[in-house]
Amino acid sequence: MTEVPQHVRPQHVRIVGTGLLGTSIGLALRAQGVDVSLSDPSPTAQALASDMGAGRLDTDGLASVDLVVVAAPPDVVAHVVAHELAAFPQATVTDVASVKASIADALVGCPGAERYVGSHPMAGRERSGAVAARSDLFAGCTWVVCANDLDAPRAALVARVAQLCGARVVSMPANEHDVAVAAVSHVPQLASSVVAAQLRNLSDDAVALAGQGVRDVTRIAASDPMLWTQILAGNAQAVRPIVDAMIEQLTQVRGALADGATGTGARAVLAQTIADGQDGRARIPGKHGSAPTLYRTLAVIIPDEPGALGHVFTDAGRTGVSIEDIRIEHDEAANAGLLELDVLPMHAHTLLTQLRESGWRAHLLD
Amino acid sequence: MTEVPQHVRPQHVRIVGTGLLGTSIGLALRAQGVDVSLSDPSPTAQALASDMGAGRLDTDGLASVDLVVVAAPPDVVAHVVAHELAAFPQATVTDVASVKASIADALVGCPGAERYVGSHPMAGRERSGAVAARSDLFAGCTWVVCANDLDAPRAALVARVAQLCGARVVSMPANEHDVAVAAVSHVPQLASSVVAAQLRNLSDDAVALAGQGVRDVTRIAASDPMLWTQILAGNAQAVRPIVDAMIEQLTQVRGALADGATGTGARAVLAQTIADGQDGRARIPGKHGSAPTLYRTLAVIIPDEPGALGHVFTDAGRTGVSIEDIRIEHDEAANAGLLELDVLPMHAHTLLTQLRESGWRAHLLD
Repeated sequence: MTEVPQHVRPQHVRIVGTGLLGTSIGLALRAQGVDVSLSDPSPTAQALASDMGAGRLDTDGLASVDLVVVAAPPDVVAHVVAHELAAFPQATVTDVASVKASIADALVGCPGAERYVGSHPMAGRERSGAVAARSDLFAGCTWVVCANDLDAPRAALVARVAQLCGARVVSMPANEHDVAVAAVSHVPQLASSVVAAQLRNLSDDAVALAGQGVRDVTRIAASDPMLWTQILAGNAQAVRPIVDAMIEQLTQVRGALADGATGTGARAVLAQTIADGQDGRARIPGKHGSAPTLYRTLAVIIPDEPGALGHVFTDAGRTGVSIEDIRIEHDEAANAGLLELDVLPMHAHTLLTQLRESGWRAHLLD
Repeated sequence: MTEVPQHVRPQHVRIVGTGLLGTSIGLALRAQGVDVSLSDPSPTAQALASDMGAGRLDTDGLASVDLVVVAAPPDVVAHVVAHELAAFPQATVTDVASVKASIADALVGCPGAERYVGSHPMAGRERSGAVAARSDLFAGCTWVVCANDLDAPRAALVARVAQLCGARVVSMPANEHDVAVAAVSHVPQLASSVVAAQLRNLSDDAVALAGQGVRDVTRIAASDPMLWTQILAGNAQAVRPIVDAMIEQLTQVRGALADGATGTGARAVLAQTIADGQDGRARIPGKHGSAPTLYRTLAVIIPDEPGALGHVFTDAGRTGVSIEDIRIEHDEAANAGLLELDVLPMHAHTLLTQLRESGWRAHLLD
């Protein structure tokens, strides 16, 4: 997390592109009293965003625009940024696309390129359209600003907008950002899609054996192909070496499986693959950006009926214990489910005791 | 789901191996009044399981054993099954390992092999040891019995035990089972591990950008290397062609990325990969084994304090609307979280209205 200079504040922000991100930024900035004007090639889209309160459509005072936020599809971002740099010769221009170096590269030699500061709000999962916009979309999310120094006035302005939207600002060079998101976002998306693709031709009986593991691994495989084609293409240089590494590792696994995995060497390859995954998984930070915490998990059997979840959380709430994460597993027998509650280890027994005393079948898992 | 003949009932079940599965089966069968005796190479493990109420350790009436359940590590299952077939010449012998054909193959020619019926309880995620055992571990889970005909007396007996444990019984030939779990369990595990492995050498700043997508994809990467080495090796034949298909698809993606993904052909490869994943993901059945249902999702902003979840579920419960799935996203700003509730489309607006009237900031997502 990077300190954001507080002395700068945008006066008039022009948002180009009123999809999910553009509209949400407008809503957030309007809530902070910032003057926002909107523009989108689709008259319907911009009217909807304006009706939702994300900003105005009139062209009054366009000369006062000090920041342009380009929230266009990845494919056209560089082009739109260049256009806005020319149209607003005093303004800082930023964008919110998921890939940063290719945009900066495309702008090399473009008049006004020194006024461009790329940025990327890591705003949870992808949904599209102004209708999905929320003023709190960025609340607590990480927003990368591609600058070495947030004290530079234009970088500071972009960072301040991110902060006004409720985000946690991280400054990072574009290349470093692209390498990071290749590993933590783009390659996981690819892998999820490729795993899910293998389910296409299974029999109904076979897919009926799907459990929570494959559901989690393939959740993001439901994402939009057009958007992801643009993201993957835009970050090809950073994604490719990781895909290479995955192919290399899978090829080793394939070799180990080819001889029936009977030899010690073959088994060592399999064990190392799973162990490497454990090491990598352990790198992912826990809640609030802290180091990963080993929570204890309580499993609670809940009847599959309205209100049951309310009762269990009400009973849990009496302990004052903060629940760090929740998962629910459905019971195919149709009349019960399993609720899992993650809590800090020191609170696990308190919560267990309370839930049992309240009549719940609760178990503390290993 | 397969009809289970009700006229059979086990009289005396011998459980060999008192880890998570063996002990849980003992607990479940004891709760149904079945006589259970336990055996484990580790005296501590078998004493613990017996103390927990999973069965007895004395050798009284071993002649009356009509069913042996082998719950040993995958590597030694076939050997232990052969031993039990010899030691209990009247009994049916089953096992609970995740891979079935290789065990049946290993038993070909073994005296008494006609008394063996393989099975596999799909008991959620892997945890180990008797301490993690629960009598309701199998409640509502799918339990595959590898038999063509559950009316055959020995298959019926194994199916009845699965049912007494609370499971939903599915009969399926061993080869078909192994192909299914390769795709819905073993390959997702491998892919999750390989994606997670790519995070090992990232900087702290880079992994700090990890969002919910990569967390979901890599959750099962935390699994045990020794257990998974045995599972993958045991199912090498079914896993290998799927790994081949994944390598093939990733190699195409790699080729598309190699030329910067600028051509139409390259983009088509990327788009097709993501679209194939959408198709595969859509095959995974929804709750209660039914066809996938398109739920509507409500997002509710909740303060990060004890009791808040209780209040929101209590308010939600007033509507009588059944909540089909829950996810929680943490807000790195440390004072709020985002709760997502999946409900049937026809109930979405009822729940939205109720939550808003109760003062929650709730949004219906696209």
